[in-house]
Amino acid sequence: MDVKSKKKLVIDVCLSPALYPVYHRDDTIVVVIDILRATSAMCTAFHHGVEKIIPVASVDEATEYKKQGFIVGAERNGIALEGFDFGNSPASYMTEKIKGQTIVISTTNGTQAIDVSRNAYKVVIGAFTNITALCDWLKVQNRSVLLLCSGWKNRFNLEDTLFAGAVAEILLKEKDAFHYGDGALAAKFMYQAAQNNPYKYLRNSSHTERLSAMGLKGDIKYCLSLDKTTIIPILEGKYLVKM
Amino acid sequence: MDVKSKKKLVIDVCLSPALYPVYHRDDTIVVVIDILRATSAMCTAFHHGVEKIIPVASVDEATEYKKQGFIVGAERNGIALEGFDFGNSPASYMTEKIKGQTIVISTTNGTQAIDVSRNAYKVVIGAFTNITALCDWLKVQNRSVLLLCSGWKNRFNLEDTLFAGAVAEILLKEKDAFHYGDGALAAKFMYQAAQNNPYKYLRNSSHTERLSAMGLKGDIKYCLSLDKTTIIPILEGKYLVKM
Repeated sequence: MDVKSKKKLVIDVCLSPALYPVYHRDDTIVVVIDILRATSAMCTAFHHGVEKIIPVASVDEATEYKKQGFIVGAERNGIALEGFDFGNSPASYMTEKIKGQTIVISTTNGTQAIDVSRNAYKVVIGAFTNITALCDWLKVQNRSVLLLCSGWKNRFNLEDTLFAGAVAEILLKEKDAFHYGDGALAAKFMYQAAQNNPYKYLRNSSHTERLSAMGLKGDIKYCLSLDKTTIIPILEGKYLVKM
Repeated sequence: MDVKSKKKLVIDVCLSPALYPVYHRDDTIVVVIDILRATSAMCTAFHHGVEKIIPVASVDEATEYKKQGFIVGAERNGIALEGFDFGNSPASYMTEKIKGQTIVISTTNGTQAIDVSRNAYKVVIGAFTNITALCDWLKVQNRSVLLLCSGWKNRFNLEDTLFAGAVAEILLKEKDAFHYGDGALAAKFMYQAAQNNPYKYLRNSSHTERLSAMGLKGDIKYCLSLDKTTIIPILEGKYLVKM
């Protein structure tokens, strides 16, 4: 692949699921990001042997699957919903119970972002916990990349953008491979400022405050740790599967 | 005003007009930002004696006003539209022609952002060219502030966010006055990284590239220069007027 053809590839960041329609391109790989905690939890679930995940946007759909006998994780506003098997904590997916199973997950933001982007060329799941595997794969696709931040109820959030910046920074090392959209430039600058201590950088962010208040600092530290797995979840029809 | 009551004030940044509905609060001052170049041009127009500006979202409306005999500026995609008096360049508003006049302006992004936020508690116009006057005024309002970036066709852009970060940084010096939303934190971090040389920082941004290619580097430098005026334009009904 020569540099000229690679030059046309674009890396950009979409900072809210509500903006996805203005960023959609038919030929672009979408990386869905919900660092605290949906996409981190999904990577953890696959690493602990889950076979397939059905991400669903609404609690009604989650309830329907629960009635059908599926193992279902459901979370809203940081809290595991009553009557389901899990919430959104990666720790809860570190269990033998899910091995070989198809499970269902519905969360406040991450599964909404998967839902809006499901017609993209490819949809994959990104988190700090699979960042190296993800970037190694993105580098060899010869495709434009859109990093889709799940945010918080369609608002911008800091931690998803920080991860997008980390990916942009890594892909930048592939000199001349990508043209950077403004969102990718901004995220990259943010990551460069934060990389030595992302936990400190995020200290005052809204969702870090929210989860800390719930006693979930352990979850935050886990979700900011690198390369706990080499699995890249990818959407195939209604299922997330291991690539 | 005691510190406790001030604590409840929020400063946040809305990174696209398309996200405005999720950020709207009835009690919040909205600062509309379109650094390259609508809000910079509006400040320039007032500084050069314009009496009122009617910002309109569509070219059809602009055409209608033109037929009625108004002086009209109309720009799309960085280019002044044929048949109108001005485009979006601040330089074109440095003229005696507009003194004491009511003029009409329609631009690609800035006038759209004014349009979506016109039901806010107050809507004011921000640019580097009036930043000190604007911040001095915001500091004494005892109101939450939403910095609304016009972006580029509902996409995120770098220069508007940088300005939002500059305002956030200045207001931060009012210790304990504001709670910072994630957008404001991110913009502030970006501004801190860029403040020594914003022109260099913006070099690779999409609209800087676009305008540079049109030979408009002079406009960019002007739009990044500080405190060319102490006027703060404010929306009153359909008119922008001097505060």
